[in-house]
Amino acid sequence: MHPNTIDLNSDVGESFGRWELGDDAAMLAIVTSANVACGFHAGDPTTLRRTCTLAAQRGVAVGAQVGYRDLAGFGRRFLDVSPQELADDVLYQIGALEGMCRAAGTRVRYVKPHGALYNAIVHHEAQAQAVVAAVRAYDPALPVLGLPGSEFLDAAEAAGLRTVREFFVDRGYTPDATLVPRSQPGALLHDPAEVTARVLRMVTEGVVTAVDGSDVRVRAESACVHGDSPGAVAMATAVRAGLDAAGVGLRAFAEEPG
Amino acid sequence: MHPNTIDLNSDVGESFGRWELGDDAAMLAIVTSANVACGFHAGDPTTLRRTCTLAAQRGVAVGAQVGYRDLAGFGRRFLDVSPQELADDVLYQIGALEGMCRAAGTRVRYVKPHGALYNAIVHHEAQAQAVVAAVRAYDPALPVLGLPGSEFLDAAEAAGLRTVREFFVDRGYTPDATLVPRSQPGALLHDPAEVTARVLRMVTEGVVTAVDGSDVRVRAESACVHGDSPGAVAMATAVRAGLDAAGVGLRAFAEEPG
Amino acid sequence: MHPNTIDLNSDVGESFGRWELGDDAAMLAIVTSANVACGFHAGDPTTLRRTCTLAAQRGVAVGAQVGYRDLAGFGRRFLDVSPQELADDVLYQIGALEGMCRAAGTRVRYVKPHGALYNAIVHHEAQAQAVVAAVRAYDPALPVLGLPGSEFLDAAEAAGLRTVREFFVDRGYTPDATLVPRSQPGALLHDPAEVTARVLRMVTEGVVTAVDGSDVRVRAESACVHGDSPGAVAMATAVRAGLDAAGVGLRAFAEEPG
Amino acid sequence: MHPNTIDLNSDVGESFGRWELGDDAAMLAIVTSANVACGFHAGDPTTLRRTCTLAAQRGVAVGAQVGYRDLAGFGRRFLDVSPQELADDVLYQIGALEGMCRAAGTRVRYVKPHGALYNAIVHHEAQAQAVVAAVRAYDPALPVLGLPGSEFLDAAEAAGLRTVREFFVDRGYTPDATLVPRSQPGALLHDPAEVTARVLRMVTEGVVTAVDGSDVRVRAESACVHGDSPGAVAMATAVRAGLDAAGVGLRAFAEEPG
Repeated sequence: MHPNTIDLNSDVGESFGRWELGDDAAMLAIVTSANVACGFHAGDPTTLRRTCTLAAQRGVAVGAQVGYRDLAGFGRRFLDVSPQELADDVLYQIGALEGMCRAAGTRVRYVKPHGALYNAIVHHEAQAQAVVAAVRAYDPALPVLGLPGSEFLDAAEAAGLRTVREFFVDRGYTPDATLVPRSQPGALLHDPAEVTARVLRMVTEGVVTAVDGSDVRVRAESACVHGDSPGAVAMATAVRAGLDAAGVGLRAFAEEPG
Repeated sequence: MHPNTIDLNSDVGESFGRWELGDDAAMLAIVTSANVACGFHAGDPTTLRRTCTLAAQRGVAVGAQVGYRDLAGFGRRFLDVSPQELADDVLYQIGALEGMCRAAGTRVRYVKPHGALYNAIVHHEAQAQAVVAAVRAYDPALPVLGLPGSEFLDAAEAAGLRTVREFFVDRGYTPDATLVPRSQPGALLHDPAEVTARVLRMVTEGVVTAVDGSDVRVRAESACVHGDSPGAVAMATAVRAGLDAAGVGLRAFAEEPG
Repeated sequence: MHPNTIDLNSDVGESFGRWELGDDAAMLAIVTSANVACGFHAGDPTTLRRTCTLAAQRGVAVGAQVGYRDLAGFGRRFLDVSPQELADDVLYQIGALEGMCRAAGTRVRYVKPHGALYNAIVHHEAQAQAVVAAVRAYDPALPVLGLPGSEFLDAAEAAGLRTVREFFVDRGYTPDATLVPRSQPGALLHDPAEVTARVLRMVTEGVVTAVDGSDVRVRAESACVHGDSPGAVAMATAVRAGLDAAGVGLRAFAEEPG
Repeated sequence: MHPNTIDLNSDVGESFGRWELGDDAAMLAIVTSANVACGFHAGDPTTLRRTCTLAAQRGVAVGAQVGYRDLAGFGRRFLDVSPQELADDVLYQIGALEGMCRAAGTRVRYVKPHGALYNAIVHHEAQAQAVVAAVRAYDPALPVLGLPGSEFLDAAEAAGLRTVREFFVDRGYTPDATLVPRSQPGALLHDPAEVTARVLRMVTEGVVTAVDGSDVRVRAESACVHGDSPGAVAMATAVRAGLDAAGVGLRAFAEEPG
C-alpha cells in the first residue's frame, strides 16, 4: 500500500432484534472496512445479512468483529474463557458471518476482536494465542486487525498471519505510543478538525502529537473511527473529507480474494 | 446410488456446555451421515468442533441440523418467525457449522431441519420456502434431507435443490405413508429385531408394513436412527448389523465436494 | 373508581444492556401505571431496577410485563410453549421483577402480558389459562390487565382474579369493539388532538367512534399509550394534558398493597 | 445450633430444558439445605419450580444459588461484571427463585454464590460487596452461605447479615485451613468412609486432618456435598448415614421464616 493511502474501519452491524444501534448506512458510505458484529456480543442474523449486503454494494471490505459470548454486556466485560473454548467461539463467529457474506455476494476478509476481548489480548497471551489459532484454522490467509505492540499482533505475526495495525483517530496517545487510559485527561478527542489534522499527520508523516505535546511515531495501515457514539457520523465524515481533500487515497487493506 | 445401499443418519452434537446429551462417539461409529446441531437449539462451539472432527476422522458426512433459536425449548416449540428472519437464522447456522468443519478438515454436505422446524415445514409453506431460500443462497449444490411429501422437499425440488427423502426406522407408518402421530398406538417401535427387519424390507423392497398391517410403498435414500433416547445406541447398532449382514451397502448420500 | 377517573399505562424498561429503547423517564412522568419488562423479551436487571426505582419515586404503579422467552424477537413472535412451561416462565418473571421492586421500595402491583403472548391469549385458551394459573400461584390478589373480551380476562375472572380492561388510545376500533387489524386502513391514529378527544369521550361517555363512523361502547379502566415509537412522548403528553384539562382524574387502578 | 448438629447442603436444580443434570430427587432425600440454581448459570423455570416443590415437600431449606449470567459456561468462568450490574443480577435471581418458591409453598431462606462467582468473591472485594448489597436490598434477614475467611463472608458480616460457614466434605485442606487447589495432590477425596470420618470429626471436634497430616481447626455450620459428579449420591448417602449413626442431628441452618 502506498504510504499516502489509508484504510478507514468502523464497527457496524451492532443492532440486535428490536434494538437499533448506530447508523450503519451512513458509516458504510464513509469507511473502507466494516467490522461487522458476529452475533455473540451484538448482531442478529437479519442485521448481519443486511449489513453485509450493503457493504458489498458499496465495495466496503467485511471483517469479522469477534467477541465474547455476552449479549447482556455487549462483549465489554472480560470473560475468563479457556483458550480452547475461545478459539471455538471465534471459529463459530467467523463461519456464521461468512454465511451471511455468501448470501450477500462477498466474503469475510479480515478479523478484528471486539471490546473486552480486544483489550484482553493486548496482554493476555493464552487468549491472544487462541484467537490466532482460530483464524489460522479457519483460513491462514485471513489478515487480523489490532493494536500495534499487542500480544495479539505479535502472536499472529509469529503464526504467519498478516497483521494490520490500527490507529484510533479520536484517542489520545502517550509518549510511548500507547493509548491514554479512558480514566485520564486527554483520552478522548472531540473536535473533528483536530482529529482530522491528526489523522493526516499520521498518514503523511507517521507521527502523532502525544498527550504531553511530544511527537511520537505511530505506524498503522488502518484508522478506526467510532460508529455508535453521538456525533460519530459527523466525526467520520470530517475525517473522510479531510483525507479526500489532502489527496490521501482511501482503500481497504484487505482486497477481495481472487 | 445402488438400490441396495442406504444412508443412516442421526442427530449428534446436541450437548451444550456443562450438559451432555447422547453418545456421539458411539453414534459416529454407526451412521454414515451426522446431523450436527448448529448452536440455536443445541450445540456449543466446542462440542460442534469436536463432533465435526470425529465425523471427519470416521468419514461420516456432516449435515447442518438447523433449528429455531430456542435453547430453552431445544428447538421443539413452534416459533412464528418471519420468513426473512428464518432464512437469515438458517444461513447463520449453516455458516457457523461450516466454520467448525473447516477447522475439522471437512465441509457441511447437507442441511436437515430440526425438531419443531422440521415438523412445521411439512405444511408451513412460508417457512419451508425460507429454509429453501437460505440453502440456495448459501450453496445451491447443497442437498436437503427431509420428509417425503413435505412442503419443504417440494419447495426445495422446485427451487432446483437436490432433495433426499428419509425413513424413520422406529416410527409407525399409516397406510398413506405418513407417520403415525406420537399420541396414537403404534407410533413408536421399540424392538430392535422388528425395526431392523423393517429397514431391510424398506431398502430391498421399498415397502413397509403400515400400522393396519397393510403394505405401503416408502421410498427413501436415508434412514434416520435416533441418538438421544435410552437404548438409542443399541437400536442403531442392531440396525447397522442387520444391514451389514444382509449385504446392504451403507453410504452417505452426500459425497465429499470435489 | 369514579367514572371520570382513568389509569394511563405504558410499556417501559425495555432497554437491554447497551441498547436503549424508549424514554422511560419521560413516560414515567406521564403515566400512572408502568408495564415493566421482566427480562424475557427485554429488560436487563440494571434497567429494571432503575425503572422500578423511578416509578416508585414518582408514585407510578409497577406491573410485570411478562412475555415469551425470546430476546431476539422482542417477544413479538408466537411461541408454542406448553402451558406448564409458560406458567413457570411467567412465575419466574413476576418474581424477578419483584426482586427489583423490593430494592426500589415498591411492589409488583399487577400483571400485563406482552406482545405475541398478549395477542395469543386473546384466543388461545391453554396459554391464557397458564398465565392465569401463574398469577394465582404467585398472588391471587394481583390484578391482570388485558383486552376486554379476551380469553385471558375471561379465564382470569373465572379464576377469581381482579381483571382490568384496557383501551388503546391510538388504535382504531371496529363496530364490534375489537381492534382494527394493523394490516387495514384506520388501524393506527396519529393525530394527538384526535386521539385525546377519543380518550376523553371513552372516559366520560364510555363510547368510541368506530372505523365506520358508528358509535361503539367500550368500557375500560386503563388507557394504553405507546412508549417506544417516534412521537410516543408527544402523544402521551397530549393525552395526559387533555385529560387534566377536562378534569379527569388520573389514578393507578392498582393501589399500593397495605 | 447445638454443636453436634450440622446442615448438609448441595447444589440442585441445575438441569436446563432438554438437558438433565444430577439426581435432584435423590439429593433432596439426603440434604437439609438445597442450593437451587436461579436461571443464570443453569435452571429453567420448570426445573426450578419442580425442585422447589420437592424441597418444600421434604422440608429441605431452599437457598438461591446465584451466579454469573453465563449458561454456556455454567457460571464457571470469571466475568468482570461491574458491581452495580452484579448486584442487580443477583437481586433478579433471588426474586425469580422466590417466585418459584411462592408457587411451591416455601421461601428463599438463604443465598449461596455459585461457581466462578463463589471463587471470585473469596478475594474480589468489589464483587463481594455487590453480592452483599443485593442480599441486603432484598432482605437483610437472609443469611448467606460461603467460605470461612472469604471477603464475601467478611463483607456480609460487616453489613449485618447472618453468615454461615461451610465445610467441603470431599476437599483436602491445607494447614492454613484453606482448600488444596484442584491442581495439587490431595485436592479431592474419593473414599466415602474417609470422607464420612472427616465430617464426623469436624462436627464433633471442630478439627480436620490437613493434607500434611496435621490437625487444623475448621468451624462450619454447614457441610457441602456435591450433587452432579458420578458417585455423588453414593457419597452423600454415606455421609448422611455416618452422621445419623453417630447421633449427629441434621438440621437446616435457616429455619422457615415465621
